[in-house]
Amino acid sequence: MDTKPTAVLLMSCPDQRGLVARVADFVFRHNGNIVHSDHHTDGESATFLMRVEWELDGFAIPRDETAPAFAPLADSMRMQWQLHFSDRPQRVAILVSKYSHCLHDLLWRHNEGELRGEIVLVISNHPDLAPDVRRFSIPYHVFPVTSETKPTVEQEELQLLAKNQIDLVVLARYMQVLSADFVAHYPNRIINIHHSFLPAFSGARPYHQAHERGVKLIGATSHYVTAQLDEGPIIEQDVVRVSHRDMVDDLVRKGRDLERIVLARAVRLHLEHRILPYGIKTVVFD
Amino acid sequence: MDTKPTAVLLMSCPDQRGLVARVADFVFRHNGNIVHSDHHTDGESATFLMRVEWELDGFAIPRDETAPAFAPLADSMRMQWQLHFSDRPQRVAILVSKYSHCLHDLLWRHNEGELRGEIVLVISNHPDLAPDVRRFSIPYHVFPVTSETKPTVEQEELQLLAKNQIDLVVLARYMQVLSADFVAHYPNRIINIHHSFLPAFSGARPYHQAHERGVKLIGATSHYVTAQLDEGPIIEQDVVRVSHRDMVDDLVRKGRDLERIVLARAVRLHLEHRILPYGIKTVVFD
Amino acid sequence: MDTKPTAVLLMSCPDQRGLVARVADFVFRHNGNIVHSDHHTDGESATFLMRVEWELDGFAIPRDETAPAFAPLADSMRMQWQLHFSDRPQRVAILVSKYSHCLHDLLWRHNEGELRGEIVLVISNHPDLAPDVRRFSIPYHVFPVTSETKPTVEQEELQLLAKNQIDLVVLARYMQVLSADFVAHYPNRIINIHHSFLPAFSGARPYHQAHERGVKLIGATSHYVTAQLDEGPIIEQDVVRVSHRDMVDDLVRKGRDLERIVLARAVRLHLEHRILPYGIKTVVFD
Amino acid sequence: MDTKPTAVLLMSCPDQRGLVARVADFVFRHNGNIVHSDHHTDGESATFLMRVEWELDGFAIPRDETAPAFAPLADSMRMQWQLHFSDRPQRVAILVSKYSHCLHDLLWRHNEGELRGEIVLVISNHPDLAPDVRRFSIPYHVFPVTSETKPTVEQEELQLLAKNQIDLVVLARYMQVLSADFVAHYPNRIINIHHSFLPAFSGARPYHQAHERGVKLIGATSHYVTAQLDEGPIIEQDVVRVSHRDMVDDLVRKGRDLERIVLARAVRLHLEHRILPYGIKTVVFD
Repeated sequence: MDTKPTAVLLMSCPDQRGLVARVADFVFRHNGNIVHSDHHTDGESATFLMRVEWELDGFAIPRDETAPAFAPLADSMRMQWQLHFSDRPQRVAILVSKYSHCLHDLLWRHNEGELRGEIVLVISNHPDLAPDVRRFSIPYHVFPVTSETKPTVEQEELQLLAKNQIDLVVLARYMQVLSADFVAHYPNRIINIHHSFLPAFSGARPYHQAHERGVKLIGATSHYVTAQLDEGPIIEQDVVRVSHRDMVDDLVRKGRDLERIVLARAVRLHLEHRILPYGIKTVVFD
Repeated sequence: MDTKPTAVLLMSCPDQRGLVARVADFVFRHNGNIVHSDHHTDGESATFLMRVEWELDGFAIPRDETAPAFAPLADSMRMQWQLHFSDRPQRVAILVSKYSHCLHDLLWRHNEGELRGEIVLVISNHPDLAPDVRRFSIPYHVFPVTSETKPTVEQEELQLLAKNQIDLVVLARYMQVLSADFVAHYPNRIINIHHSFLPAFSGARPYHQAHERGVKLIGATSHYVTAQLDEGPIIEQDVVRVSHRDMVDDLVRKGRDLERIVLARAVRLHLEHRILPYGIKTVVFD
Repeated sequence: MDTKPTAVLLMSCPDQRGLVARVADFVFRHNGNIVHSDHHTDGESATFLMRVEWELDGFAIPRDETAPAFAPLADSMRMQWQLHFSDRPQRVAILVSKYSHCLHDLLWRHNEGELRGEIVLVISNHPDLAPDVRRFSIPYHVFPVTSETKPTVEQEELQLLAKNQIDLVVLARYMQVLSADFVAHYPNRIINIHHSFLPAFSGARPYHQAHERGVKLIGATSHYVTAQLDEGPIIEQDVVRVSHRDMVDDLVRKGRDLERIVLARAVRLHLEHRILPYGIKTVVFD
Repeated sequence: MDTKPTAVLLMSCPDQRGLVARVADFVFRHNGNIVHSDHHTDGESATFLMRVEWELDGFAIPRDETAPAFAPLADSMRMQWQLHFSDRPQRVAILVSKYSHCLHDLLWRHNEGELRGEIVLVISNHPDLAPDVRRFSIPYHVFPVTSETKPTVEQEELQLLAKNQIDLVVLARYMQVLSADFVAHYPNRIINIHHSFLPAFSGARPYHQAHERGVKLIGATSHYVTAQLDEGPIIEQDVVRVSHRDMVDDLVRKGRDLERIVLARAVRLHLEHRILPYGIKTVVFD
């Protein structure tokens, strides 16, 4: 694990010459040592997207002056940009229902120090997983939801998230559809795991759909949540082989391993600021 | 490569006790040495499906008496069944348009002796690939198709196939949709390769669809052709990783390798009588 | 998950005709419904290996008379064989040192009901993981080991295992080499996870070896433990892609996911009696 | 396929600050549009490695002045570096023995325009594959080799390669070990395909070794050839699943598909100047 503190810039702007040079020069001129730099040009939309990470040790600009120092360059290039410091860990909330596997996996990785973030709280519409979570000394909040109470409950949840200064919301098999209003509070900051290889088998019961269709591989997809269900920018996908011998229960069992890994990869990439969504796609600087 | 001649029985029937024992006993009683035996019970439809393969060397029943000898048992179990002899190679026709990769790959495998079958002829709606095929001393028939001529042309193609006693038709990126009538002549004996991970991206231009959606894996699917386009029983699927760097042309290039392999696996499994379709699914006895 | 109780026969013997028929007939004659039957003939050693599983419901022979009823057939074929009943769960002991990932994963799967067995106790040469294990209400026994005390300690461990009627010992990253004497008590009943794609990088620090060699994939291997370190029959292997960007720490992190899954698959296969070792290989009836 | 001509710089030097900025600035200052830029710092050896590719269209320095213009910067940073132009295709020689699959695959890809290079000639120690090669209108040279004639023959081969200004030598299952002297003429410019997951099963008959050991995956490895057999820097590896059912012949068959793809990927990466070897490793800028 890299333990030296770093700064990360994530940028996107209309494509033009000299972007790599200007950004690299900004870091170099202030004595920063670049440890990662990657960029991508989307030819169709003429969009330039870049990630640069440098060591803070020896960097000439203090943290709170770095954003103001970079702003003029960013403005002249009409950039959308984010600046992050690796030693200011992201604050994460997990939303779950009754399935424990993704939750458990994230808690374990958190415990192992695999994730560059803090799991601050867990929210569920069911009390079932409380003991699993409290075991890790993390608060577990139960918000039962019905179709009538949903708008009110979402407001309470949003308040809880705001009060806890949550940066990232992870839906670890949360079985409620979030309203467009809720989603709008965390654009590209809510990650969901869908238990199919999207766009195949979107919607409900994907393992049943896969079994009925007789596919030879099943998949899992992690994506940012948008107002359109299962339509958000895809972050990561993977598959596993199945056969005619596998009943729905076997797909569920095999899928659990997939879901855990595909969700964990997405969360890790997000917490390291390696994902830049644009349109309905993502660039993953891994 | 196994070169001893064998017999293969593929059977399906309503599930009932004693099926494995009765079939194994039939072979054993006549002094056959079983080299492969596998079965599957589909619980939902209470269907029993089985494949058994035994060496002909030493088997007490002559070939042309084997089917009659097995029929009483099959009838008493209400079986649908097929009997094949490995040294009676299947006769294969390939249909192509302009893309050469799947065709070329099959011709090369045929040449190497990888396939338990004879590629007897190639049909195309374009003349382009004639030199590639004649190089292998295989007849190449051109049947230009327009929407008006299609019914007539299909009849001519069917006559050509019939005259050549074709057992299996392989669509190696054939860009014409076959009519329901054509398909009905070769039920579960036409194999197609679709360049996506079905059911995602069925229909036209799947690599363009995949690129637009921003998926992180692309796939290929081989399946039996039915009257419903891209809906037939899936035989084999595989995927390969892609990233934001991959333009449509890169997906096409990476996909070619997938398509070749996924189609070749399906053809090989079919020619070894390892596939038993039922409903819209397949059992693959590999 | 299949919940109807079944019986499983695992058999191996010199190859001869009629084996499948005779075994299937034994089950059928006593009114057993076969749910799985698979066999393999190893041509080089002329060895026949078979697994058959049938439902106990309706089977005409009581459990304690099944073995005696089968023995005459087995003897006449010079079989080595085992008979198991699925509702008599295997008793499992896990040995660990300080790494928690494989242990944790197995405990979680056990909790979810994924494993057809009971994790009865955990043994470690370190106290560190005691809280993790006790949380699952499973006894945790600490046996510190030095090179002097090892023979004595192993005897104590063997007594503990015997007293608890352990069927299967799982080394979930246990960092001590077991003596040949210990291993001899549990032939083909100790499963280890090695963190490389064996036979590459056997021995110590495989991730360091892999990093130094600059491989593009890393692997994990689960195998039965024999007196020869890392030389036992391989049960399952898998790999994951790495690149020049991955430092040893990254290999360790990526490898943890592999190790968990590859070990869990092996344990699951063993507990369902799907593995038949012969020589330094295994047949896996999956 | 990208068809605009580009320049590629591959560089390595002792790590120091400002390298990315200086290189990017060199391109930008002369009005070059960077289409790919990637770098890697090997912390252990404090080595900086970088690839940058920019469009020649609009670049202010003529081709033959680009190297002299870059040299002062390179010298000041103590770089080892190469400059390539994408429209000056690499000249490739393929060496084969009797197996056709890798050769055939490369010829087909070449024909399809997949490779940024020209296959100029094929050398073999056997006449068998001459017809396959001549079909593609490529010269086929036969050099029979015995242990006595080997030194002489290698000199003749080297002369032929030199006369044809060969940039890259591809061993497409060439069954002769090249002498250290031969290898020294093409440092990191000879690519071999080894039919195992190196370092497992180096040396002769890897599929036989794999079969004997009972592994559950087989692999293939493409690498640069050095004086130490099977020890050169690894470029690419992949694996495929096998089981106890697979005899050596099946491993050979499955392995052929692997070998073709793993070799083709390496050749493609090399021809696009995406590989930078250092020590016994490679950085692959893909």
